[in-house]
Amino acid sequence: MSEWRKYIRKVTPYTPGEQPNKPNMVKLNTNECPYPPSPKVDEIMKSFNTDLLRLYPSPDVGPLVKAIAAYHNVDENQVFVGVGSDDVIGMAFLTFFNSKKPILFPDITYSFYDVWADLFRIPYKTIPVDDNFEINPKDYNIENGGVIIANPNAPTAIEMPLAAIEELIKANQDSIVIVDEAYVDFGTVSALELIDKYENLLITRTFSKSRAMAGARIGFAIGSEELISAMQSVKFAYNSYTMNQPAILAGVEAINDDAYFREIRDKIVKTREHAKLRLAELGFEGTNSMTNFLFVTHKEVDAKDILEYLKSKDIYVRYWNKPRINNYLRISIGTDEEMEKLYSALEEFLSE
Amino acid sequence: MSEWRKYIRKVTPYTPGEQPNKPNMVKLNTNECPYPPSPKVDEIMKSFNTDLLRLYPSPDVGPLVKAIAAYHNVDENQVFVGVGSDDVIGMAFLTFFNSKKPILFPDITYSFYDVWADLFRIPYKTIPVDDNFEINPKDYNIENGGVIIANPNAPTAIEMPLAAIEELIKANQDSIVIVDEAYVDFGTVSALELIDKYENLLITRTFSKSRAMAGARIGFAIGSEELISAMQSVKFAYNSYTMNQPAILAGVEAINDDAYFREIRDKIVKTREHAKLRLAELGFEGTNSMTNFLFVTHKEVDAKDILEYLKSKDIYVRYWNKPRINNYLRISIGTDEEMEKLYSALEEFLSE
Repeated sequence: MSEWRKYIRKVTPYTPGEQPNKPNMVKLNTNECPYPPSPKVDEIMKSFNTDLLRLYPSPDVGPLVKAIAAYHNVDENQVFVGVGSDDVIGMAFLTFFNSKKPILFPDITYSFYDVWADLFRIPYKTIPVDDNFEINPKDYNIENGGVIIANPNAPTAIEMPLAAIEELIKANQDSIVIVDEAYVDFGTVSALELIDKYENLLITRTFSKSRAMAGARIGFAIGSEELISAMQSVKFAYNSYTMNQPAILAGVEAINDDAYFREIRDKIVKTREHAKLRLAELGFEGTNSMTNFLFVTHKEVDAKDILEYLKSKDIYVRYWNKPRINNYLRISIGTDEEMEKLYSALEEFLSE
Repeated sequence: MSEWRKYIRKVTPYTPGEQPNKPNMVKLNTNECPYPPSPKVDEIMKSFNTDLLRLYPSPDVGPLVKAIAAYHNVDENQVFVGVGSDDVIGMAFLTFFNSKKPILFPDITYSFYDVWADLFRIPYKTIPVDDNFEINPKDYNIENGGVIIANPNAPTAIEMPLAAIEELIKANQDSIVIVDEAYVDFGTVSALELIDKYENLLITRTFSKSRAMAGARIGFAIGSEELISAMQSVKFAYNSYTMNQPAILAGVEAINDDAYFREIRDKIVKTREHAKLRLAELGFEGTNSMTNFLFVTHKEVDAKDILEYLKSKDIYVRYWNKPRINNYLRISIGTDEEMEKLYSALEEFLSE
């Protein structure tokens, strides 16, 4: 074997949900928003000054940082922007988790956390959620090199009350605690109000779900100036210019159109609450989702069989063949029309 | 000190060139293209289907990979695309340079190489270029954990003939050798023809210079399927979706419009050759640039004084206060009109 082969980093990459592209498919497998981005985003794209592309974008992502800071009522020095929240969280792992002690996260959670830990050779320990898939903050009162919690959690869709989040942070002041709020906009109380109280708290967010901009790749973190400044240094030691001109411009418009954001968010929440009833009628049980997806199991029929049947009808949902959740499906909330197609297909299959 | 502060990664970030934004400035400091991107890029941006933004982009960057592979006549499995060539090279460092032996690069070269090495804790050793700033391949015949060479080199603008590049690769078959060809389109012979001969060779390129797309953040690598597949794994262990929808679409148009690419490249080369004569008349000496910038020193006047004077006239060029090059300026090639403004300002200053 050539010497150089020995030094190639070995990793087990994260597997994203399928990205099929069929004309009449119902795509409920990657928690995308079923509605288009704000019309303001469309306007800015249509009037885009292409000549600008010849120049490097603002390295500090100035206009977008300003808009996010203003919207969340924090200082510009408390905001870090990256290429989707995966870039932001990956960068946070590289920046903050350099202790020899294991970082902690739930056994059932976003399946990228252990991938990042492996990539950067960060030791980790998973903490089992309870039989209802709930996270107990007391389980995190053990020595650690950091903690990351998704709130609401994924794929379980369960929220953790702010008091429980604060209890966890309070008990872990020797560590940096990341709260991944990718789905917070669909009804969960954010930990944002704690950032001035705990300088070891980092909150991450994304434009991919509630802002309908998965294709623009925008995520951000909010935290103390000290944490954000450390992330900026690492970012500038990796890539000076990460956010391209269209992403910066479109991101600003998306964040500024709050009325549209509320409108589509409310529609998704309404569809979700209706879906809970409809799926219960069809014999499903599930968690009380506070996200833009449902996490459900059928009382009688195997999740895998349902998955395959739906796929044969060009309806895509997500399934993991993993311990504890291998009889569950994660179903993104689509438009009402898409959801009706889902209910019909399920009715058809389950009545066979 | 809080325990967590001890485990924050300490880095010295790269400092990009200033990005001033003045109405009549002449910006010759970051090697941007003075001409806009292809009109085809403008068309695709103006007709952009914003609804698409709600969906995740193609995780394998399919359409852009296909276009780049076809253009360079390589297999799609030999192409890796990233967020500018900085993302691509950074990812390559993380993927390939995991030996305890030092990686090698010239003492005078792109000043990001040592930053990436520090970021990822990769040991490195710099090899002095000779008194004419030239790279001697024989100097790299020492034990190492990898080699990276920019060809043409930056900021010296000097090309290395293909034979010298091959000599270096041939003598380093136990290591992965990266040839950073950010500026190759302006007249240097690429090492692309060697990729099927040496599976340890990785070539990196950017859309930021010759394709006038610094603001779109697109870079790529070409190498053996084995190297590209290893980089893909690491990329998918960091961020599934790096390239946003506008970058993918605009990138495809840019690469497909070869006639426009040749037209602006030829204009830049013509302006560069004229600039060499004009600056010589003004008392400058410099290397024989094969890039879109000049690397020059004045026989009598300090580089720093010239820098400051030009800045006072809103003409921006690049200067490094570093050993061996602290009396040199790097001047990007602008439009003929911008260059005339530069010559006039220099004439005025030097005749004072």
